[in-house]
Amino acid sequence: MGLIPKLSSGQVLVRTTAFAITAGARAGLQGSASYAGAAESDVVMQGTGIGEVVESTNTQFPVGSMVLGPTGWQEYAALNSRSLTFIPERYDPLKFIGPLGINGLAAYFGLFRTGRPVIGETVMVSAAAGSVGHFAGQMAKIIGCKVVGVTGDDKKAERLRNELGFDASVNYKSENFRNDLKLATPDGIDVYFDNTGGDILGSALFRLNVGGRIACCGVVSQYDTSSPDSGPRGIPGLLVNKRITMQGFLVFDYADEYQTARDEINKWIDSGQLIGWTDEVFGLDSAPEAFVNLLAGGNVGSRVVRLD
Amino acid sequence: MGLIPKLSSGQVLVRTTAFAITAGARAGLQGSASYAGAAESDVVMQGTGIGEVVESTNTQFPVGSMVLGPTGWQEYAALNSRSLTFIPERYDPLKFIGPLGINGLAAYFGLFRTGRPVIGETVMVSAAAGSVGHFAGQMAKIIGCKVVGVTGDDKKAERLRNELGFDASVNYKSENFRNDLKLATPDGIDVYFDNTGGDILGSALFRLNVGGRIACCGVVSQYDTSSPDSGPRGIPGLLVNKRITMQGFLVFDYADEYQTARDEINKWIDSGQLIGWTDEVFGLDSAPEAFVNLLAGGNVGSRVVRLD
Repeated sequence: MGLIPKLSSGQVLVRTTAFAITAGARAGLQGSASYAGAAESDVVMQGTGIGEVVESTNTQFPVGSMVLGPTGWQEYAALNSRSLTFIPERYDPLKFIGPLGINGLAAYFGLFRTGRPVIGETVMVSAAAGSVGHFAGQMAKIIGCKVVGVTGDDKKAERLRNELGFDASVNYKSENFRNDLKLATPDGIDVYFDNTGGDILGSALFRLNVGGRIACCGVVSQYDTSSPDSGPRGIPGLLVNKRITMQGFLVFDYADEYQTARDEINKWIDSGQLIGWTDEVFGLDSAPEAFVNLLAGGNVGSRVVRLD
Repeated sequence: MGLIPKLSSGQVLVRTTAFAITAGARAGLQGSASYAGAAESDVVMQGTGIGEVVESTNTQFPVGSMVLGPTGWQEYAALNSRSLTFIPERYDPLKFIGPLGINGLAAYFGLFRTGRPVIGETVMVSAAAGSVGHFAGQMAKIIGCKVVGVTGDDKKAERLRNELGFDASVNYKSENFRNDLKLATPDGIDVYFDNTGGDILGSALFRLNVGGRIACCGVVSQYDTSSPDSGPRGIPGLLVNKRITMQGFLVFDYADEYQTARDEINKWIDSGQLIGWTDEVFGLDSAPEAFVNLLAGGNVGSRVVRLD
């Protein structure tokens, strides 16, 4: 049993049962330029998790109930009740760090509010087998788009087509990547859901149609370096010529609408239209390696550390 | 008197009285990657001009009337009537290659439809003393924004403040450019009207506020080179962190709304709220040098070649 923190007034004690490993957490280690602020040593690594309430004076979060919150990478967390989301019993709590969690919500709001694809359009997704990407691609399929996934592994590419119904998938590590992408997008690209930035973004710019939109969700190509690359050639020239809109978003800006989105996503799960890939590791000690390996593209779907 | 072309059916013969020299024309010399298509030799250099109808069977464009159209750099042009705009007598025809022409319209639609500033926001404009920029900055002032202009010349910077009412102006050639820009934008930047791309765009990204917008109008830093630079560092990372929207536009997409915009711009001219700087040269032979010099930043406002 880990260290059990003392509660301050208004706090709830949560026993973490699982937490998510996300690429976005890497941004938090880059210093104050990131939305996540600067990292410090000797503090708990931040992260979103689920757990059981073990001590509480707040009737919204009774002892024994399951909650979602910023547990961090630890077995017990003393959390302000304002930062917690109650998980009703009808849900599998693990879904709250998968399709109903930040990953699924980022796919949902990034795709539908920022990319805004409509039926029949072609949507490209990078890091397409990743925690956000595999949801974004499936959601685009659900509304009737053609979907092309980009990933760094032939096996992942095959699984995207065979298991998730992507229309095409391309390995960006292939020598013929640009040509493969061209062949996979005969009608060009209308919406690019960008989880990577870098060269993949540069290649997408050449395939985007007039009026195309880029939803900038993450920059995984740039997190694991001390000096980010230059941006792609063609910015802003191709944006002008093709009247492209490029828009960054953070899922947290949509917090007021999470519940509505969760209800809709949950219907897709129940009807079998949306599959959540989960990539589980067990025990707190496995978290650091799972994180490093995720940044190298080792995960498929949502990477989760389970503690029980 | 120059070569007088023969008319085909439906054409109108126009005697050019003036034409505009624009940076955008340089894009047309870069090959098929540009919206303007590839350039050819032994053809007339393209460009927008005004002139007097000297031969016509079209009652919309009677002999003696003034028109705006794609005259190119030539004294006489045989033009399809569909490509012409009749200039009513109440207007000074020269305004149609200034504030009421493509330059003024690009400022209008780029600012109000793409940048969408609102009263009290800070608007930054690059190439701010240029043909589009000096209108964009003034239009932002008209609706109650704080306006910061970036230019490459201290005298131009001073004129922007003293003659056009810009709140601040900065010389990007200064060693202290980044710091000067910081001091000139104490509240950050809400909208950046980008005529240049390149390093100035990169600097703007650091000063943009959360929710900022970039209207991508032109890429003058990249036209006059055979291999465009990489894009700025911070794309797409800063777009994500600050939820910035970057959007390219072409004025031609708004052709159906030109007349409405012209009516509004003309009111601002009449009331003295909008000043059109015109930088005139005389005679067809002066056009090539005027073009090269414009790309080097030699012009102030709309550069016009007058033929009579």
